[in-house]
Amino acid sequence: MSTASESADWWATAITRMAPGVVELRGIPVQELIGSVDFVSMIWLMVRGELPGECQAALLEAALVASVDHGPQAPSIAIARMTATCGVGLNNAMASGVNALGDAHGGAGQQCVEVLTEIVSSTDAGTDLTAAVAHVTSRHRYVPGFGHRFHPVDPRRDPLLTLVDRAVDDGVVTGRYLRAARAVETFLNEGRSRPVPMNIDGATAVIYAELGFAPELARGLFVLSRTVGILAHAWEETTQGMRNKGPIPRSILPTFRGESRRLPG
Amino acid sequence: MSTASESADWWATAITRMAPGVVELRGIPVQELIGSVDFVSMIWLMVRGELPGECQAALLEAALVASVDHGPQAPSIAIARMTATCGVGLNNAMASGVNALGDAHGGAGQQCVEVLTEIVSSTDAGTDLTAAVAHVTSRHRYVPGFGHRFHPVDPRRDPLLTLVDRAVDDGVVTGRYLRAARAVETFLNEGRSRPVPMNIDGATAVIYAELGFAPELARGLFVLSRTVGILAHAWEETTQGMRNKGPIPRSILPTFRGESRRLPG
Amino acid sequence: MSTASESADWWATAITRMAPGVVELRGIPVQELIGSVDFVSMIWLMVRGELPGECQAALLEAALVASVDHGPQAPSIAIARMTATCGVGLNNAMASGVNALGDAHGGAGQQCVEVLTEIVSSTDAGTDLTAAVAHVTSRHRYVPGFGHRFHPVDPRRDPLLTLVDRAVDDGVVTGRYLRAARAVETFLNEGRSRPVPMNIDGATAVIYAELGFAPELARGLFVLSRTVGILAHAWEETTQGMRNKGPIPRSILPTFRGESRRLPG
Amino acid sequence: MSTASESADWWATAITRMAPGVVELRGIPVQELIGSVDFVSMIWLMVRGELPGECQAALLEAALVASVDHGPQAPSIAIARMTATCGVGLNNAMASGVNALGDAHGGAGQQCVEVLTEIVSSTDAGTDLTAAVAHVTSRHRYVPGFGHRFHPVDPRRDPLLTLVDRAVDDGVVTGRYLRAARAVETFLNEGRSRPVPMNIDGATAVIYAELGFAPELARGLFVLSRTVGILAHAWEETTQGMRNKGPIPRSILPTFRGESRRLPG
Repeated sequence: MSTASESADWWATAITRMAPGVVELRGIPVQELIGSVDFVSMIWLMVRGELPGECQAALLEAALVASVDHGPQAPSIAIARMTATCGVGLNNAMASGVNALGDAHGGAGQQCVEVLTEIVSSTDAGTDLTAAVAHVTSRHRYVPGFGHRFHPVDPRRDPLLTLVDRAVDDGVVTGRYLRAARAVETFLNEGRSRPVPMNIDGATAVIYAELGFAPELARGLFVLSRTVGILAHAWEETTQGMRNKGPIPRSILPTFRGESRRLPG
Repeated sequence: MSTASESADWWATAITRMAPGVVELRGIPVQELIGSVDFVSMIWLMVRGELPGECQAALLEAALVASVDHGPQAPSIAIARMTATCGVGLNNAMASGVNALGDAHGGAGQQCVEVLTEIVSSTDAGTDLTAAVAHVTSRHRYVPGFGHRFHPVDPRRDPLLTLVDRAVDDGVVTGRYLRAARAVETFLNEGRSRPVPMNIDGATAVIYAELGFAPELARGLFVLSRTVGILAHAWEETTQGMRNKGPIPRSILPTFRGESRRLPG
Repeated sequence: MSTASESADWWATAITRMAPGVVELRGIPVQELIGSVDFVSMIWLMVRGELPGECQAALLEAALVASVDHGPQAPSIAIARMTATCGVGLNNAMASGVNALGDAHGGAGQQCVEVLTEIVSSTDAGTDLTAAVAHVTSRHRYVPGFGHRFHPVDPRRDPLLTLVDRAVDDGVVTGRYLRAARAVETFLNEGRSRPVPMNIDGATAVIYAELGFAPELARGLFVLSRTVGILAHAWEETTQGMRNKGPIPRSILPTFRGESRRLPG
Repeated sequence: MSTASESADWWATAITRMAPGVVELRGIPVQELIGSVDFVSMIWLMVRGELPGECQAALLEAALVASVDHGPQAPSIAIARMTATCGVGLNNAMASGVNALGDAHGGAGQQCVEVLTEIVSSTDAGTDLTAAVAHVTSRHRYVPGFGHRFHPVDPRRDPLLTLVDRAVDDGVVTGRYLRAARAVETFLNEGRSRPVPMNIDGATAVIYAELGFAPELARGLFVLSRTVGILAHAWEETTQGMRNKGPIPRSILPTFRGESRRLPG
């Protein structure tokens, strides 16, 4: 093989084909997509390689809408806002927000898809659902996708699950991961006074798993959705014009070895 | 004011309201948005503070669909793919891709909105359109949003402008920025053998300007759109399992002071 | 030219030469550097292409030591600490800290070198120093490198300037940028009740300029120095084991449109 | 506790104390450090909390000098160079380079410290060294810190180990991790035609372990060292003035499904 083709092959991709005057995405000329395909279907096309059905796209759309933001107390949002005050581009502020969506902040959806997949595999192999749930959840101190330190009930749970229920009724998805997730919820709440309900990560994990996305893509799609909130917050912060925003007001100075002090204005 | 409210106010936002069991985005409970509002309208709501009309959302949607990807030769995509092979999370790979969308890579749309806005302000103040175009473009060696080093004609230009034309006919937008952009194109091509047509950044800048987005948001929305391509490429790279992917095949070693050498396999 | 050498040339560099069993940095085999050259001289070699004299290295060392940290109220440090709690690698936390060192946070040194360079060029061309200072500073609302919103006197100023004075006496540097900086300080403080003394960015800018570093490298070297503090803080945060650290304690919830509220524990 | 002190405590640190006119790092006023303490000792002070002995600092210095760069074929360096051409700050280019130093690119040192620590713990508990090595390495397909796909012998190995040997002789360190590392090397090479010698990550891991750094800090210190190379390369790229540098020359276009093509110049 020549070095030219070797170099080109090193960067070969099944996603994009470029030639002068030509941009094809997953084999479809871009001009056929613009104005014809909605943004959510475009997302699906890019990561999966083919266009979704309308009902599949609707379910993905609900998951993407539900996850856009959870306020500036979330590290990713606070970080994007702070970075936006430091004299960098809006893209740099967004990048640092996205960079914080790691295993402990943006990874619960991915982990929950893994948990649900393991339960479904186990029941497919003949294990009883309750036993599979007990076995799989026993390995987690906190089962990802369940419980919330702030919301007693996550307001995003019910509307998402209602849509999945409807998609099951319509034969769009099988409902196997939904069943597994509900069984986990029941199991975790048995005999508890304080409930541990399914949270946004759990409810969207159900959708991603039902739609056949790989666990890592549950993270990737959550990141994409949260990028909307990150953009909105970075932009709001930018319009306020503060420079070098620290985490707390300047009048409160964090101090060394616990001697808190309040500075004069 | 107490320190508690001072600290809370430091992070106050008009975007999100949180309370136990409550998530409101721009004043709308999240459960009313899930399943009712499409993702593009959600993006608009988050950055603008109110829901768009259907035709406005459709125009934004076209711009977002058109910009998702331009192949792995773009630094942002290559960077995301390389980072994905280095043993970090998918979000980290996405962050580094986004971080590269600076003034020279992702900023042409923002700069083009600024150019178009200046031309429109100038004509509003009574200057003749051609004179305004000549004056504003004279300050740029390369007018952002026009010309492409790779595509003689950008295949994304025509379908986008067709949609803007239709939106003008329907009274959705005024068409003032479209007119300005076409005047720039005419001006740049006068007496040229090699055309300098409007490119993707120019065509989407027209849409963002017509829809009333601030120039910086033209960057922000482009970043959001390109994040889709970044995710798709980072994920494709991940599935291929390479580790520590460098920019060129290992058989070709970049060398010092021009002594190229080919290594034994 | 063959494509092989074209590809290799695309990544050619004067910094590193690699061959099997060979690593040369700026033309020196790495094994001759290890154990012989101190880290600061290594930094100089890498960015400048040659080894520094001992007194030059000592001056750079002082600047690097002085800038390592300014506490967690600085956005870069707070961001690194928050990111470290999100389930990503220590390198990712460091990256987000570094990413915040933009024009408004880490750029004052670079801007101050530019100001000092302009003053020195102006006096070289025959302008009187006071006139040059008045002219150049008149273009800045806040002259970069002077004044501090927190420290009435920056404790890092005096020891750094003392070292520069000594280097001038020893003929290591010319002292032209030091003179310009002192003239700016005098000019800014004339007739003021509240002093606007040179700060850390100003004092290190004097050093970088005296040593002949390009203005952008003043930023780059500051970033390198602050990376030490970023690492120390990210690591301290990691050892404390918090997850998803937000900017303020969870008991204080930032709220929407100014209605601050305190949550029950 | 009042909210003021609660907020301040949320950001309390043992690293930095700030008050107007005061900056203390690990309890030492910064003005006592500037000009007195070398940069490597400052790094040690910041991450460990106390100043090192001179011989300890010298060993750390050698490790930091040895790791600064391995050329632009390394993803971190290529990424920093590409980002530097995209119209962002030098700090943003550095950040994206650092962000790539993940488990597979910058993590081998950390993993090697873990391997060596496990072997030493095992021998401390009475296991024979060879048995401990066989047991611990059996869990790794590739033992981190050993072997190199490019260098048959890593030129940084010998000078680093020589310094450790000397430090053992001088009683600066115990030599237990060095012994473990040499035993791993012997074990891996037994009966092999192609040697698997200790590489830079292994040799620096020995130093970090001997000096008592936690495994994660082996990553952190490597990142700090490599930031020097990242800065030098990002700056070299900046001075060359290219815009939007892709991974391969523009004349070679990566294509879709293997149809390589060469564009007209």
